[in-house]
Amino acid sequence: MAKPLSPEEISFALTALPGWRFENDALAKDFKFGSFRAAMAFMVRVGFEAEAADHHPEWTNVYNRVAIRLKTHSAGGKVTGKDVELAKAIEKVAG
Amino acid sequence: MAKPLSPEEISFALTALPGWRFENDALAKDFKFGSFRAAMAFMVRVGFEAEAADHHPEWTNVYNRVAIRLKTHSAGGKVTGKDVELAKAIEKVAG
Repeated sequence: MAKPLSPEEISFALTALPGWRFENDALAKDFKFGSFRAAMAFMVRVGFEAEAADHHPEWTNVYNRVAIRLKTHSAGGKVTGKDVELAKAIEKVAG
Repeated sequence: MAKPLSPEEISFALTALPGWRFENDALAKDFKFGSFRAAMAFMVRVGFEAEAADHHPEWTNVYNRVAIRLKTHSAGGKVTGKDVELAKAIEKVAG
């Protein structure tokens, strides 16, 4: 089972994740795209990454915006290395 | 421009939309699927309906759950006939 990261580990991870923040026990980032289609395409691509990692985001879409929150339910809703890995995969998709 | 519906019109529309409710000035329904993949597939199909109608949901996905809220920004964030039409299209997708 994934272990919760310490505050120091989270701070260190964030240095490699531009635009991400630690908020309410989760890694969070808000994305804005040029259109609803672009936002949906992003979500589908992230969906494949999430499914492959068997680790899934909490996310909200409103038109061209996607707000993402990552935490690990099996670790008491805390941030673990799985969240950091998924955030990195999301950054690659966002390109 | 779409006109806000009256409370009576909203109540009447809800009679044809099982599981939908009127909440915080929006039409709302929470969907639960058998998997994340099924939830994503649902969102993609609804996305095509939304884009075709040029009317888009506010929605949140967590694993196999999708919470949808519909209101019309161009009508002051009130429920209009566009929301009722999109809710009907969503029901068809949910099948």
